[in-house]
Amino acid sequence: MIKPELKAALDVIFAADSEIYANRGFMRRIGFGKRPALIHIDLANAWTQQGYPFTCNDMDTIIPAVQDLNKVGRTKGIPVAYTTTAFAVTEGPNSDMGLWNLKIPSEALKLGSEAVAIDERIAPLPGEQVIVKKRASAFHGTYLAGFLRAHDVDTVILTGVTMAGCVRHTAEDAIAEGFRPIVVREAVGDRVPGVVEWNLFDIDAKFGDVVSLETTLAYLNGL
Amino acid sequence: MIKPELKAALDVIFAADSEIYANRGFMRRIGFGKRPALIHIDLANAWTQQGYPFTCNDMDTIIPAVQDLNKVGRTKGIPVAYTTTAFAVTEGPNSDMGLWNLKIPSEALKLGSEAVAIDERIAPLPGEQVIVKKRASAFHGTYLAGFLRAHDVDTVILTGVTMAGCVRHTAEDAIAEGFRPIVVREAVGDRVPGVVEWNLFDIDAKFGDVVSLETTLAYLNGL
Amino acid sequence: MIKPELKAALDVIFAADSEIYANRGFMRRIGFGKRPALIHIDLANAWTQQGYPFTCNDMDTIIPAVQDLNKVGRTKGIPVAYTTTAFAVTEGPNSDMGLWNLKIPSEALKLGSEAVAIDERIAPLPGEQVIVKKRASAFHGTYLAGFLRAHDVDTVILTGVTMAGCVRHTAEDAIAEGFRPIVVREAVGDRVPGVVEWNLFDIDAKFGDVVSLETTLAYLNGL
Amino acid sequence: MIKPELKAALDVIFAADSEIYANRGFMRRIGFGKRPALIHIDLANAWTQQGYPFTCNDMDTIIPAVQDLNKVGRTKGIPVAYTTTAFAVTEGPNSDMGLWNLKIPSEALKLGSEAVAIDERIAPLPGEQVIVKKRASAFHGTYLAGFLRAHDVDTVILTGVTMAGCVRHTAEDAIAEGFRPIVVREAVGDRVPGVVEWNLFDIDAKFGDVVSLETTLAYLNGL
Repeated sequence: MIKPELKAALDVIFAADSEIYANRGFMRRIGFGKRPALIHIDLANAWTQQGYPFTCNDMDTIIPAVQDLNKVGRTKGIPVAYTTTAFAVTEGPNSDMGLWNLKIPSEALKLGSEAVAIDERIAPLPGEQVIVKKRASAFHGTYLAGFLRAHDVDTVILTGVTMAGCVRHTAEDAIAEGFRPIVVREAVGDRVPGVVEWNLFDIDAKFGDVVSLETTLAYLNGL
Repeated sequence: MIKPELKAALDVIFAADSEIYANRGFMRRIGFGKRPALIHIDLANAWTQQGYPFTCNDMDTIIPAVQDLNKVGRTKGIPVAYTTTAFAVTEGPNSDMGLWNLKIPSEALKLGSEAVAIDERIAPLPGEQVIVKKRASAFHGTYLAGFLRAHDVDTVILTGVTMAGCVRHTAEDAIAEGFRPIVVREAVGDRVPGVVEWNLFDIDAKFGDVVSLETTLAYLNGL
Repeated sequence: MIKPELKAALDVIFAADSEIYANRGFMRRIGFGKRPALIHIDLANAWTQQGYPFTCNDMDTIIPAVQDLNKVGRTKGIPVAYTTTAFAVTEGPNSDMGLWNLKIPSEALKLGSEAVAIDERIAPLPGEQVIVKKRASAFHGTYLAGFLRAHDVDTVILTGVTMAGCVRHTAEDAIAEGFRPIVVREAVGDRVPGVVEWNLFDIDAKFGDVVSLETTLAYLNGL
Repeated sequence: MIKPELKAALDVIFAADSEIYANRGFMRRIGFGKRPALIHIDLANAWTQQGYPFTCNDMDTIIPAVQDLNKVGRTKGIPVAYTTTAFAVTEGPNSDMGLWNLKIPSEALKLGSEAVAIDERIAPLPGEQVIVKKRASAFHGTYLAGFLRAHDVDTVILTGVTMAGCVRHTAEDAIAEGFRPIVVREAVGDRVPGVVEWNLFDIDAKFGDVVSLETTLAYLNGL
């Protein structure tokens, strides 16, 4: 959805930056490990459907990509986990909003509402985890790291939204925690132009590999 | 519930240990801070009612103590938060049991069941947090630390069960995270003899203050 | 250091994005709190001096800005903490590199070397913390959160490098942990064109306030 | 060092408790995993040598046990990591003592001093990690979890001191993080009577397996 001339300008920057990074030893490949998990970030209605402050773009690409990943991932018996962001209390001494509400309209994300339920087109199967988080990262203030380590997972395949927020922070935390972050190019998005491109660029330079859906499916099929 | 002669033997040990600790500069008082929160650990039916693997003792003392604390705490507008321990999936690649089930019967703690609901005698008011945790500590894999810091809390007043498990681990984590742990003597318990005594002893020596209900209520009333 | 025509293209994107964000309730101001700390991210020689893979730009602006902040911060008695990133062991079963070395040239950051020592132009005073971290975020795998809470800090004023890496991840973690992130515009940088601009944009939209040096100094002076 | 009649009293309690625990499904065996690490907790001079507030007992048993474990562990190429607890600054706005100093004499643990150096009888080899922690748990505010995951470790074999403090908290955190805690009976200790016994009892009931040195060595030799 970014205008071609602006995308072209970004590509000029990315090319210049990539040359510097490559000369200095950045942009290495982390690669897939042996035991992956699929982690779908915030693909709930408030992000996937129209009409919310959090509504994102490109769902006609993202949703089918997630469906494809789930299909093979479930066949292979790997963990498939979802996150959503939701708050029980928006005011007073028991609010669980933390400070984030001072930056973003998180008051729209009521725990238990339709808004924060996973989009039914990619609904979790009974027995798959839906981790309710309060912060951007899927790891922050959740049991995700312990869950993954207990299942002997070494690689997290990330999808969802947003690239400028929750997906990026999750990728950064994943490598810090000791998991290989793989971001599936066709399965991630955002709500404003440009931020998908530059956040994928930053992640691929430093935190995890940005990989095509095709490559990811081939990897999963080969497990 | 511990037999008098065994309690007497423990008291002999505690006295000897206390002398060594005091001589060496342990057993200092951490004291109450300025902005407390009440944190009630695992006072759900599986722990407070008869007939569960997790059933604890002394609820005729613990429940009224918690009621007293809540009454004044709510008047003062401090955060009042509960925890429960519950699991959505007990088998397969999406189990959220982690490794703990290899030690304890956590398979009995089904998410959404009556067992893991807070005891209705001390039911949370609408708008009070019930934090679902997967591990012993109320801080581990939860948003508790960020929640407390965002509310400017510096002191956590702890009640609940069990002393040998979740309350102790929570107290240890609390001081590590930068919160003053206060354990209310009459408001904590366990399911086997002796463990309340020795865990309170260890905590009071090193991690937080063990304080009477009366003193805690006086502090809260004075806010 | 970004070419004017590319900066202009970025500004077009930022303007379009800002309109969407503002219409949806993002880009709110978090503001300064009451008890700040200064956190200087990775202003060690490997980043501030020429000739390293990690060398960054704009030190003629960043270093004086940090000097100015330190001068008033120290007068006011607030915590002043530095981070550096350094590794003791680069190979074998005891390597502390984690997985990050699979993306970036962290093998150049030897613990105890001149490279990872804080730039002497902004050297810590005796008694100021230099936190050695292994990951991007100053919070990840460090005692920073507990340190700040124990000092009753509610606001972290961030400087240093890099915007696309450690400063951004630190800002994201800060708000998640319950601290107000303030990023000082003149005091942060990076090594490739564009990334300062877009990461400041993302942070200001969602995670913390990007504030001028002048405003920050005025706030500190008013404490 | 506990008097026989008090040990006998504890054993009576342990027997009664064990019966209740066993009837309820506690005290399960977690077992060894496939990829262990040796983690030696706070075996620095302040704990292993005479004359410090932190001095512990039973070093004539603990030190040889650790030597035996290291010998085989190093042969097998598993991670061998040490912790120590040390503080750079004891007063003012930059103190890294946190709140713990309000309970224990941590002012005696100066960073860089002989007190906090690992006992030379079990000195780390060049290239083995010595993790400086500020809190009781080896996981809290350190890079240990990420370090272990990046090395694909699933089991932590714990030694050191103290059972009522750092070893216990580390075991609790280990299982929460997704690592199997194994505590080596002959390789752990404390400074006051009784606390080794009751903390081993609690851990074995709920958090990890307490195993003999002989069994642990046999496991390591079989890798």
